[in-house]
Amino acid sequence: MSESELLSGIKSHAQRRLVLVSGRAYPELATSVAHELGIEVLGSDMHTFAGSEIYARFEESVRGADIFVLQSHTRPINEWLMEQLIMVDAAKRASAKRITVVAPYYPYARQDKKGRGREPISARLVADMFKVAGADRIMSVDLHAAQIQGFFDGPVDHLFAQPVLLEHFRETLSREALTVVSPDMGRVKVADAWSDKLGAPLAIIHKRRDPKVHNDVSVHEIVGDVSGRVCLLVDDLIDTGRTIVKAAEALKANGATGVVVAATHALFSDPAYEILQSDFIDRVVVTDTLPVPADKRWDRLTVLSIAPLLARAIHEVFADGSVTSMFDGAA
Amino acid sequence: MSESELLSGIKSHAQRRLVLVSGRAYPELATSVAHELGIEVLGSDMHTFAGSEIYARFEESVRGADIFVLQSHTRPINEWLMEQLIMVDAAKRASAKRITVVAPYYPYARQDKKGRGREPISARLVADMFKVAGADRIMSVDLHAAQIQGFFDGPVDHLFAQPVLLEHFRETLSREALTVVSPDMGRVKVADAWSDKLGAPLAIIHKRRDPKVHNDVSVHEIVGDVSGRVCLLVDDLIDTGRTIVKAAEALKANGATGVVVAATHALFSDPAYEILQSDFIDRVVVTDTLPVPADKRWDRLTVLSIAPLLARAIHEVFADGSVTSMFDGAA
Amino acid sequence: MSESELLSGIKSHAQRRLVLVSGRAYPELATSVAHELGIEVLGSDMHTFAGSEIYARFEESVRGADIFVLQSHTRPINEWLMEQLIMVDAAKRASAKRITVVAPYYPYARQDKKGRGREPISARLVADMFKVAGADRIMSVDLHAAQIQGFFDGPVDHLFAQPVLLEHFRETLSREALTVVSPDMGRVKVADAWSDKLGAPLAIIHKRRDPKVHNDVSVHEIVGDVSGRVCLLVDDLIDTGRTIVKAAEALKANGATGVVVAATHALFSDPAYEILQSDFIDRVVVTDTLPVPADKRWDRLTVLSIAPLLARAIHEVFADGSVTSMFDGAA
Amino acid sequence: MSESELLSGIKSHAQRRLVLVSGRAYPELATSVAHELGIEVLGSDMHTFAGSEIYARFEESVRGADIFVLQSHTRPINEWLMEQLIMVDAAKRASAKRITVVAPYYPYARQDKKGRGREPISARLVADMFKVAGADRIMSVDLHAAQIQGFFDGPVDHLFAQPVLLEHFRETLSREALTVVSPDMGRVKVADAWSDKLGAPLAIIHKRRDPKVHNDVSVHEIVGDVSGRVCLLVDDLIDTGRTIVKAAEALKANGATGVVVAATHALFSDPAYEILQSDFIDRVVVTDTLPVPADKRWDRLTVLSIAPLLARAIHEVFADGSVTSMFDGAA
Amino acid sequence: MSESELLSGIKSHAQRRLVLVSGRAYPELATSVAHELGIEVLGSDMHTFAGSEIYARFEESVRGADIFVLQSHTRPINEWLMEQLIMVDAAKRASAKRITVVAPYYPYARQDKKGRGREPISARLVADMFKVAGADRIMSVDLHAAQIQGFFDGPVDHLFAQPVLLEHFRETLSREALTVVSPDMGRVKVADAWSDKLGAPLAIIHKRRDPKVHNDVSVHEIVGDVSGRVCLLVDDLIDTGRTIVKAAEALKANGATGVVVAATHALFSDPAYEILQSDFIDRVVVTDTLPVPADKRWDRLTVLSIAPLLARAIHEVFADGSVTSMFDGAA
Amino acid sequence: MSESELLSGIKSHAQRRLVLVSGRAYPELATSVAHELGIEVLGSDMHTFAGSEIYARFEESVRGADIFVLQSHTRPINEWLMEQLIMVDAAKRASAKRITVVAPYYPYARQDKKGRGREPISARLVADMFKVAGADRIMSVDLHAAQIQGFFDGPVDHLFAQPVLLEHFRETLSREALTVVSPDMGRVKVADAWSDKLGAPLAIIHKRRDPKVHNDVSVHEIVGDVSGRVCLLVDDLIDTGRTIVKAAEALKANGATGVVVAATHALFSDPAYEILQSDFIDRVVVTDTLPVPADKRWDRLTVLSIAPLLARAIHEVFADGSVTSMFDGAA
Repeated sequence: MSESELLSGIKSHAQRRLVLVSGRAYPELATSVAHELGIEVLGSDMHTFAGSEIYARFEESVRGADIFVLQSHTRPINEWLMEQLIMVDAAKRASAKRITVVAPYYPYARQDKKGRGREPISARLVADMFKVAGADRIMSVDLHAAQIQGFFDGPVDHLFAQPVLLEHFRETLSREALTVVSPDMGRVKVADAWSDKLGAPLAIIHKRRDPKVHNDVSVHEIVGDVSGRVCLLVDDLIDTGRTIVKAAEALKANGATGVVVAATHALFSDPAYEILQSDFIDRVVVTDTLPVPADKRWDRLTVLSIAPLLARAIHEVFADGSVTSMFDGAA
Repeated sequence: MSESELLSGIKSHAQRRLVLVSGRAYPELATSVAHELGIEVLGSDMHTFAGSEIYARFEESVRGADIFVLQSHTRPINEWLMEQLIMVDAAKRASAKRITVVAPYYPYARQDKKGRGREPISARLVADMFKVAGADRIMSVDLHAAQIQGFFDGPVDHLFAQPVLLEHFRETLSREALTVVSPDMGRVKVADAWSDKLGAPLAIIHKRRDPKVHNDVSVHEIVGDVSGRVCLLVDDLIDTGRTIVKAAEALKANGATGVVVAATHALFSDPAYEILQSDFIDRVVVTDTLPVPADKRWDRLTVLSIAPLLARAIHEVFADGSVTSMFDGAA
Repeated sequence: MSESELLSGIKSHAQRRLVLVSGRAYPELATSVAHELGIEVLGSDMHTFAGSEIYARFEESVRGADIFVLQSHTRPINEWLMEQLIMVDAAKRASAKRITVVAPYYPYARQDKKGRGREPISARLVADMFKVAGADRIMSVDLHAAQIQGFFDGPVDHLFAQPVLLEHFRETLSREALTVVSPDMGRVKVADAWSDKLGAPLAIIHKRRDPKVHNDVSVHEIVGDVSGRVCLLVDDLIDTGRTIVKAAEALKANGATGVVVAATHALFSDPAYEILQSDFIDRVVVTDTLPVPADKRWDRLTVLSIAPLLARAIHEVFADGSVTSMFDGAA
Repeated sequence: MSESELLSGIKSHAQRRLVLVSGRAYPELATSVAHELGIEVLGSDMHTFAGSEIYARFEESVRGADIFVLQSHTRPINEWLMEQLIMVDAAKRASAKRITVVAPYYPYARQDKKGRGREPISARLVADMFKVAGADRIMSVDLHAAQIQGFFDGPVDHLFAQPVLLEHFRETLSREALTVVSPDMGRVKVADAWSDKLGAPLAIIHKRRDPKVHNDVSVHEIVGDVSGRVCLLVDDLIDTGRTIVKAAEALKANGATGVVVAATHALFSDPAYEILQSDFIDRVVVTDTLPVPADKRWDRLTVLSIAPLLARAIHEVFADGSVTSMFDGAA
Repeated sequence: MSESELLSGIKSHAQRRLVLVSGRAYPELATSVAHELGIEVLGSDMHTFAGSEIYARFEESVRGADIFVLQSHTRPINEWLMEQLIMVDAAKRASAKRITVVAPYYPYARQDKKGRGREPISARLVADMFKVAGADRIMSVDLHAAQIQGFFDGPVDHLFAQPVLLEHFRETLSREALTVVSPDMGRVKVADAWSDKLGAPLAIIHKRRDPKVHNDVSVHEIVGDVSGRVCLLVDDLIDTGRTIVKAAEALKANGATGVVVAATHALFSDPAYEILQSDFIDRVVVTDTLPVPADKRWDRLTVLSIAPLLARAIHEVFADGSVTSMFDGAA
Repeated sequence: MSESELLSGIKSHAQRRLVLVSGRAYPELATSVAHELGIEVLGSDMHTFAGSEIYARFEESVRGADIFVLQSHTRPINEWLMEQLIMVDAAKRASAKRITVVAPYYPYARQDKKGRGREPISARLVADMFKVAGADRIMSVDLHAAQIQGFFDGPVDHLFAQPVLLEHFRETLSREALTVVSPDMGRVKVADAWSDKLGAPLAIIHKRRDPKVHNDVSVHEIVGDVSGRVCLLVDDLIDTGRTIVKAAEALKANGATGVVVAATHALFSDPAYEILQSDFIDRVVVTDTLPVPADKRWDRLTVLSIAPLLARAIHEVFADGSVTSMFDGAA
């Protein structure tokens, strides 16, 4: 930094410095993103004390830096959320210039409204906690509800994994006899966007959820035609997999000739690993916004890397470019 | 207030006082609510100056009051929103104890997310403006997206008009041969709730919107069976009516024997009054969360009063009762 | 942007980018300001939906920009205020680096205190709404009360139109036999500043306002000598014009040989256009902080452009120069 | 407190408790207010350490109390301001239910705007400091600018001393041959209000202030007639008295037969005590919002007690009455 | 609630309702506190989803309630902290009137400052998260540093377990030949308070900590005399127990005839349960602010109930009594 | 600033400008810091009005500057604190880019917790006041409690004077026969850090404070050996000096051969100047974070300059360097 020293002050050119730090949930993702950016993840000392409290410290100065704090919100989600919040607090107190929370899968995204009285809106709480810890901005992929953008008091860069998945399907899936299927009423808009993009007809699984029992659904009927069709079952996330498997079963029972499942976030809670290998499902394609351990993958599962997308978005944010232009206007 | 005077202070019993004030958008609604509560709307001096600025002043003290500021967000919505904000500011500075914004139709509810880059999230902005003006709580009916509850930093009493509409249909509509229809992909969850409640099958109009052109839609196809059925087309709101009329036309073209439209919020923007009288539609049933002038009503339109619902909810809030219990757990 | 890529981060020189966007109230003013700055107003897509809600979207990226959001708060003021707030929200969520609200005439400036119990302080409410929407700073011209600067939690660049008006009068008005006149007690300080600057004596119209009736005044008496003098009636704004016309009439009745009116903000609410053409007034000089349609101007009206002043101030703010130095220390 | 114990909670009637505490600036005022209320000032332990830091602690519980923290902002004003802030912090942390700052003379009221660039707006800073310390509301008398109400984010009870002074003059001053005089341009509105109330004509001293030199003024001329009149010179405050004395001198020089000075706040900074005894002034009437030591009073000085007004307002606030009604609608 | 209905409003007596809810970390503590209060813990539906997110919902209305949200911050602390935050959010959105976080052991209390650069201050972060979730107040026992009170922007009721422990020792420990010992330099103030209360001399273990290695200490020397003395080793908490055991060993090696350990918070992280049974320690006395499972207790361990203290403090807070008076002025 | 002018905006390189301003408490310190930085203190117009209010204005533009507002919090501390707050407000409103409060001695540092019920936590109040006035960051030396860092919602650069003092002692004090002594229980951690650094044993003065009587202590006993040792009595600050002098007397009475006192902050309240010259004390070494007037210094007093440390830290902050690295990781 060259400086000209004046009587009443010192002047210098302002510089920007991009820094990427990572929580411990899925460090390989950060490494991939850093690799795409041509840098290394900044070293940090992070551990959990015997008493279960988390400690975080950066090993180099982040003063004045444009810091991206990446965490993958896999199980146990509360641990990793708290770790990320503590990292943000440390970055704030270490005088980082701007702090971006990178949460490829937004934690508690599904608790985005009060379905019943006296419920929390935990997705808003999470946004407020990021804010109070010191986050200036959030970057996330395929929010469960786009309205979550409005929960944060500041810019949210909402990325879409669809281009990543589409590029994969362009090579692997024939559009002939293809029908896009929504596994339930709540996700119809996602399926609609796929149907629009692929120029394929749409079908919907109409079922009921018992609001008191999580993960318990009762498939009712298929709205639309699936007989003799290859069905692309799309969703933003797969949790236990029960909804998807029952949907696939119903599709096959109604004459579908193939069922391919596409989703962005592979939560894969028990018993997902087991039941997704069902014969009703011909292929499952997900991204690695959440870690899918190598020893748990099976042959009909494809895991696409989300790192190039994150890296490009991070660079656009750093360089005052445009994230919107990555997605044809949407963002 | 009986007081016991002590050396070091004065003690008295705390009292609560419910007060209802109303903006000028639709004063008849406030009068109806007040009537249900057995009170009168508090007098206020409100006018618009020659320069178009709004003035508001309460004619009696509201010090210590539990004040409900009711406005119906009809056209011109920005005027009525600003008037309500000014009333909230006046109530705050007049030492009201608690201020509840009652917005039966939440303004800017449809701008609840960034559909494209560089868009605002006006529904969040509205929530923040209510907050900064001094609102402690919000009460609204059938939010366009339930996530809007999470936009406000405080309690939101989310009321549902479905019981009001259902009671009406119980007497006027046979459940036989009834199919619930969603006019587009974005409102499927509303239709799903009706289908669930009525035990009727579901159909969906699958169409595309051009995101750059508002109110322009292209009907594609009907997902589900409607031939020989009486179709109950449900939505949370009717704006220009174009979507609904095209949906009705498509239903009739596909063999529907009747089309009844049900919606909570009658925005009725041009050319709604004209086109909703279409022959494709046998009946339209709405509530009066927004004013529907008597001289614009037509014979196949039914307008149900929302005042009893609002009055009951206001009294529950005032008396620390339960709003949740008004809706079987949901709220 | 040239970058040096390091193991632990990317460094680049920081850049600044000035961007000007405009609401729809008076786009010609923004065009003039942009012209003075040698740029163009950034394109934006703004319209009002059938339901009266406003939509705003910028057509280019404003990420990292030093954005100035200009709106002229003419009738209907609530529409234009809401539009500007929505633009600020969009800029915030689009990651603008710094947002300056440019409101040449500050909306609701006259509701700057509680004149009576249970009134709002709408000018403070406006400041808080700008803040909560995302504004970092405000720029305005001739605030009705200088204390409004203190309503905003952040820097306010308070510009003065006096130099613009003075330059005009230097060429058109003889200082001989000139008396500066305040049209009422509340604006004496403005007149005092003019009297000071012109070295001319001061007179004051002493009248009463009925606080319950807006725009209704009763002229009482003239404090000071005006007989045989050319009177320069000065005010910060002209609304309906009634006060000014009655003042002019009283001055002429008391022997004034000429009456010239000078004001910064031409609100010109009904019946201003009609009555200001009164024979009691020889000339009216205003600026175009608010639009004065060409077809409503009359021959004895002079409208001076405020654009050069705004442009210079915007550039000083952008370039970390000094706005204060534009006005000999005052600001 | 009688309690009914339930399975799921304990219920009891809510009570209110009014508590008055006082800083050390002018404890006699608090004692008078307490006397009017029929209570005693709550005991507190307050002292200044050797290192000049202030300590404050209440001697009884204030948990749940409606506490009024009274301080008179006399010299050294920064000490007393800091003491009051510390008392508010202590009350907040001691779980007081509602905290009202009572500042009969609002500190730094005259720094209410930026007169020049790079100046502070200390009156807003003071409002923010009260807020951040924990104040819910402010009560003050005759704010230097009514706009200061808008500096505080919450209710401000603005009291007027005029009724107290008027009652005194009703008995001591003949309205015949009476002229109300404003000592400078900045205080014309105060004089206007007096002129209105007394039905007396108005005159104004027109002078210039050098903005760089405090308390230095140059009297120019008298606008209006004062010859043969008894002049009532009114202002909200008297600081060094120089302005008032020069005004009185000018009035007498212009033929005034008497000069009576009325002001709410007796700052009486050097050399006020000396020069206000000038022969040009026949009588000075002030209130005791600020202490006027008995040994410094002179025979032509009248000090009226503000305590009854404060006590009545405090009781109205406590009992959810109306402060507005104390002043015929104004407040 | 008896109501008098007026034209302009409804009046009723205000009531208070105390409600206690509990997280799942240590429900037995809440049950004990409720038992002391003569109530029952309010029912709530709380569970952890397969994906590890937490859900919380109250089974009865808490509208208008004075709600105390109790959680015991044992392992895994991040889970229980997040659960408590979610409960607070739910209570806020369910319109509770006042929310008190009861955290007998304050989570992350030991990260109360930056010991090195780029560390977080997690204890402040926790306070801010409680605030942003909706907590009005915090109640805690024996904060690791009393300054943590200052981290929360609101009242903190700081309770002391010393009376509970002292009452136990009064019956079980002779004061003759008793020496109070601080296990390290950082806890000397706690030992000082005990020494003061018991009138016993003080000794200190002087050792070094390696700041990079947690739980690793090197005992150096004993400052003060312990030969022939019964040593009461006091600390606010016992984590792994290593410091305490090494201290006890050093005391015995220096001639201590007995070592009794007293602490408020029994974190008992590995290998505490094992090593605290060391022969160097004659007795360990703790409270149950954190759960100590019955099957892990050993014969020389005494666990005292903290429930009566919490219950009394909760009742004082609810009834606007005095918590301070529970501790002779300290609080 | 070179600019490239585009159609849609103006671009330029961002620059930084370091500016140092100083309050009036101890301007020589600012001059020394500026000298170390090779600049001059920015001119400002600051004075106290007759009424005791403070006025502050900067004489040059600080727009866009990285401004450091330095004040030395000596007696009268409330005056200087208020002056600094007003300066921060002025800097904020003058559009400074970043404002750092430099308070070498943090005011009210000792009121950092509630020692008894109903006390304030004035150190937190001070942090909040700095924040609300507009401070982005705080820089301070040897905080009385490191937890004060957590009181401020933003970065705090915590500097240590130990290196400055150590460098002095390296030349003037033999480490042989040296014992580090803490003057009371509350400051043991400071002494521990010195003992650690010097490799010298530790002793502690064990005394009692009467919490109701400030500055009154009763020396009890010396824990540790001091006979035949040179004692280095260390503390963070010296206020009245009574504790230190009594400690020195006790040390000499117990056989100490020498007593050297080292402290960072020389408050030197009455009667410090008198009693510190006691024969029990051989030398007193302090820094000039607070002014020690030349005419009050005595021959056995050494005052070290803190300016080089402050200057280096300010430059690191300005240049996005590392403050942590100045202290081997601690900060």
